[in-house]
Amino acid sequence: MCEGEGIFEGEIWVRGDRILYVGKGEIPDDIYAEMPGKCIIWDKEIDCKKNLLMPGFKNAHTHSGMTLLRSFADDLPLDEWLNHKIFPIEAKMTAEDIYELSRLAVLEYLTSGITAVFDMYLTPKSIGEAFDNMGMRCVQVGAVNNFSQSPEMVEEMYQTLNHKSPLQSYMLGFHAEYTCSKSLLEQIAGLAHKYKAPVFTHLAETENEVAGCRKRYGMTPMAFLDGLGMFDYGGGGYHCVHMTPEDIEIMSRKGLYAVTNPGSNTKLASGIAPVTDFLKAGVKVAIGTDGPASNNCLDMFREMFLVIGLAKLREKDASAVDALEVLKMATVNGAKAMGLKDADVLEAGKLADMIMIDLNQPNMRPQNNIPKNLVYSGSKQNVVMTMVGGKILYENGVFYTNEKPEVIYQKTDSILEKLIGKIPDENT
Amino acid sequence: MCEGEGIFEGEIWVRGDRILYVGKGEIPDDIYAEMPGKCIIWDKEIDCKKNLLMPGFKNAHTHSGMTLLRSFADDLPLDEWLNHKIFPIEAKMTAEDIYELSRLAVLEYLTSGITAVFDMYLTPKSIGEAFDNMGMRCVQVGAVNNFSQSPEMVEEMYQTLNHKSPLQSYMLGFHAEYTCSKSLLEQIAGLAHKYKAPVFTHLAETENEVAGCRKRYGMTPMAFLDGLGMFDYGGGGYHCVHMTPEDIEIMSRKGLYAVTNPGSNTKLASGIAPVTDFLKAGVKVAIGTDGPASNNCLDMFREMFLVIGLAKLREKDASAVDALEVLKMATVNGAKAMGLKDADVLEAGKLADMIMIDLNQPNMRPQNNIPKNLVYSGSKQNVVMTMVGGKILYENGVFYTNEKPEVIYQKTDSILEKLIGKIPDENT
Repeated sequence: MCEGEGIFEGEIWVRGDRILYVGKGEIPDDIYAEMPGKCIIWDKEIDCKKNLLMPGFKNAHTHSGMTLLRSFADDLPLDEWLNHKIFPIEAKMTAEDIYELSRLAVLEYLTSGITAVFDMYLTPKSIGEAFDNMGMRCVQVGAVNNFSQSPEMVEEMYQTLNHKSPLQSYMLGFHAEYTCSKSLLEQIAGLAHKYKAPVFTHLAETENEVAGCRKRYGMTPMAFLDGLGMFDYGGGGYHCVHMTPEDIEIMSRKGLYAVTNPGSNTKLASGIAPVTDFLKAGVKVAIGTDGPASNNCLDMFREMFLVIGLAKLREKDASAVDALEVLKMATVNGAKAMGLKDADVLEAGKLADMIMIDLNQPNMRPQNNIPKNLVYSGSKQNVVMTMVGGKILYENGVFYTNEKPEVIYQKTDSILEKLIGKIPDENT
Repeated sequence: MCEGEGIFEGEIWVRGDRILYVGKGEIPDDIYAEMPGKCIIWDKEIDCKKNLLMPGFKNAHTHSGMTLLRSFADDLPLDEWLNHKIFPIEAKMTAEDIYELSRLAVLEYLTSGITAVFDMYLTPKSIGEAFDNMGMRCVQVGAVNNFSQSPEMVEEMYQTLNHKSPLQSYMLGFHAEYTCSKSLLEQIAGLAHKYKAPVFTHLAETENEVAGCRKRYGMTPMAFLDGLGMFDYGGGGYHCVHMTPEDIEIMSRKGLYAVTNPGSNTKLASGIAPVTDFLKAGVKVAIGTDGPASNNCLDMFREMFLVIGLAKLREKDASAVDALEVLKMATVNGAKAMGLKDADVLEAGKLADMIMIDLNQPNMRPQNNIPKNLVYSGSKQNVVMTMVGGKILYENGVFYTNEKPEVIYQKTDSILEKLIGKIPDENT
């Protein structure tokens, strides 16, 4: 079990969607005093068999609805992939399609011990409904650009989705500097000031993006956006691969989050984010999978290994970044970036968003160091329970969501047939 | 099911340790004719439920006995890690210790669909016994260097372990150029000529190693070893990270295998192997995990993603290397490098070394392209059956090996306590 950074043997009690107690198992007086009839009645008791309970992973950048495009057009140059393969299909997707495709993503998140995601995609209402339906936590972020959504829609979603369900919230955001006009960006910065709210966006993902912004405005995306007052109330960037020391200084000074997406940056050949520079400058780092078209899986274990491994490769230094630091990025830092202040650690009063890791599988033996085992050797296979808001949604390979996987697979296959065409029997 | 490169719906029949039939399910005349009483009696029939049967992964470079040192001393500079942490513990290991530690590795291999490994470590006899005991296939390779083993021992193992058990074989090899004197290397090259046999070794893993060889002999390790006649009968190198065009030309001309180990090269900050250069030059590439102290897990799915992802990063080209090519490296090429000519593909007469991949988990949906799903989204979680030599050793999370995991964990924990010391309760 985890409390802050420590691991100890004990018990966690859950009531409703919150953690009631974390400790060695003695009943505290205040809890005993309020028990009806002074006795404790449990709905369910789970023997953890010396396995690890820890906070669920926070996937701090994804586009859930892109499950349709997994393995659809890989191993192509970035421009051809995006403009000729991805965008034409996305243009045909309906809100109902994205509802089903997001539900497919939820199943996958649960198998990787992800209890909340930071989702940016096309149809916020239907995405929120999908997560509500599946019982999973979702923080959405504005995806406005010159071609879809609008500042008015972002404001409307900000006002409505933050009060719709305990599982949903919404943050200000826009797609990226390179897909938004200056006036559009000024309107988003205006919303940040109006609501004193943080803003998130794709930032410095590719060399081309940075070069384009320099050409347009004579500045890096970070410097340009900061100059608009975009980050006066915090927020941060997804990817943050091609960053200057001045960019990093701005992030440090403004308390911004760098959400790193190493799987996607690797597969799309975008580069390696300067994670060690972020850490040195005190910039908080969180981790996201990015969408399933660019990764292609939604697996925080793979991302954690990539964060630490690519940092070592980049610095040519096997001692670069410590495993425990990466574990914090994937849990505590993600929660904080996403505004989920009650989903960061396992403590009384916090949300019961937690997972159980099977320490009795061979990749977790011996137990020289459990955090290092998790980051270097851990796999989705070790996730034997995923709980969101006190409800077990996945346990020992079985989903306890409102909808069965088979039904979701059937529906997403139909969407695939409608938008892409039937998969041939020999689909190589 | 896989036959060569294709995927089709059908059946695979197994008799003894071999595949009897692969096809649509009609009984061929020659098989029918030899049936006793002209009827087929199956010991066991498995409904694959439209899941994928494919050849097991071949882990083409590992040091199984190093499981003890997983998470023991990570995030340290390479020299400190190796000389001050790893070597002192290894010096204390007995053959019996390595027997148990290798059995622990076998459990992990099975969970990742690995059906055979190419193992280089300290005590070949006890390692072979461990694999025999667990029912798993193991090709060992000589690890001789200035400090342990000898050419005589390599020759003795070559003569004995190649005839001991259908699951074991042994190839000529030595640890590395930098740990062997010139006269020792000449003796190994002599054995290669005596037996007309291929030789494998660690090769060009780090910049330092190549610089050292240049200083000693004025040549790269590849050029120097080739000049000794080391590879006149084939073989290859593990790692092969820092290779000149001339090195690659030698490999191509001699038909050598480059066994890439991206997880280890990443974690130890050694660099990115020039996989696209190998492919362009026609050098055959296989994939290995390296040992669990330097990776730290024994997971071919992670390695496959790293092979393709790091190639794209290195070339700054998202189209570098195709997923199907990587799948071949992890199966067919590995088998060929290891001399397992009958364990490469699923065909009648080949060894029944195969695995079942659950295509009904969310990371495998939709099925736009199954090979790409495997390489980009696949995980150990998808491995629901691992069969070696016709015997199911792992199915749906349960091990059917001769020894239970609990017993092996207990024994390896005792070795840890003996060699490293008791793990504190709060082992962070």
